[in-house]
Amino acid sequence: MPEQTSTEAAALRRRQDEFGWDGVDRLAYKQDAAAPFRNVSRQTLFSRPDLAGELRYFEIAAGGHTTLERHNHVHGVMVLRGRGRCLVGTQVDEIGELDLITIPGWTWHQFRAAADAPLGFLCLVDSVRDRPVLPAPEDIASLRAHPEVAAFLDG
Amino acid sequence: MPEQTSTEAAALRRRQDEFGWDGVDRLAYKQDAAAPFRNVSRQTLFSRPDLAGELRYFEIAAGGHTTLERHNHVHGVMVLRGRGRCLVGTQVDEIGELDLITIPGWTWHQFRAAADAPLGFLCLVDSVRDRPVLPAPEDIASLRAHPEVAAFLDG
Repeated sequence: MPEQTSTEAAALRRRQDEFGWDGVDRLAYKQDAAAPFRNVSRQTLFSRPDLAGELRYFEIAAGGHTTLERHNHVHGVMVLRGRGRCLVGTQVDEIGELDLITIPGWTWHQFRAAADAPLGFLCLVDSVRDRPVLPAPEDIASLRAHPEVAAFLDG
Repeated sequence: MPEQTSTEAAALRRRQDEFGWDGVDRLAYKQDAAAPFRNVSRQTLFSRPDLAGELRYFEIAAGGHTTLERHNHVHGVMVLRGRGRCLVGTQVDEIGELDLITIPGWTWHQFRAAADAPLGFLCLVDSVRDRPVLPAPEDIASLRAHPEVAAFLDG
């Protein structure tokens, strides 16, 4: 082994399998029929006290989706794997590898993997950030007033 | 076109070519015989006043390299394309797609593409950060005291 330059965590974390890394836990979200997300795993790639941002890797299995939510903090997203669709505000887009998606503050958003492919993406956030808020019934109604959004929400 | 949710820049920037994006300038570094870097382009993927971090994509053409430098701010790097080597402190590693590299503050670092492949990587930094410092002759001498580092610096 080459000598380490410091006592902190290894400078290099190698890719282990297709989208997994040395020393990075893959967290599966608990889920049940009532859960607002489905088949999503999260891996935190960079998070340090001396970094103002964090980079995470989320992967949604085919047919799964993230939570419909909004918050003050911004997301910077890059798709790394597979394909699917995203809702940002009232805009629905097909997304695929290396596409970039910006989710401004307080904008409703959700990601859905294709029925036959996973959707894996990097997500840049501030280390210090607020908690997500879930939609109230009136928010859902307002979103569903847009036919394209209603179709997205219905999967 | 679906309606836009806000007046700001498009939420979605599609991948254009292999590693290029809509509305993202590709900046080529000026270079000459004396330049401390060679054949490097930079694209800023996420940089906003309401994000504390920035995500950039750097690509080094085959045989090229970044500047040997250090600074207070931290880099979080993920290789997206190709292969090469990196120096972090006095540690030299072969790196390839999806490997993660952490460069702590004030640590000498340099990236080199393979002779026959490019090296493209994402780099997470704080939006507010200090300027890099170049090595003084005594820093180079100190690094070269490590045979593996000397071999790396010689390309």
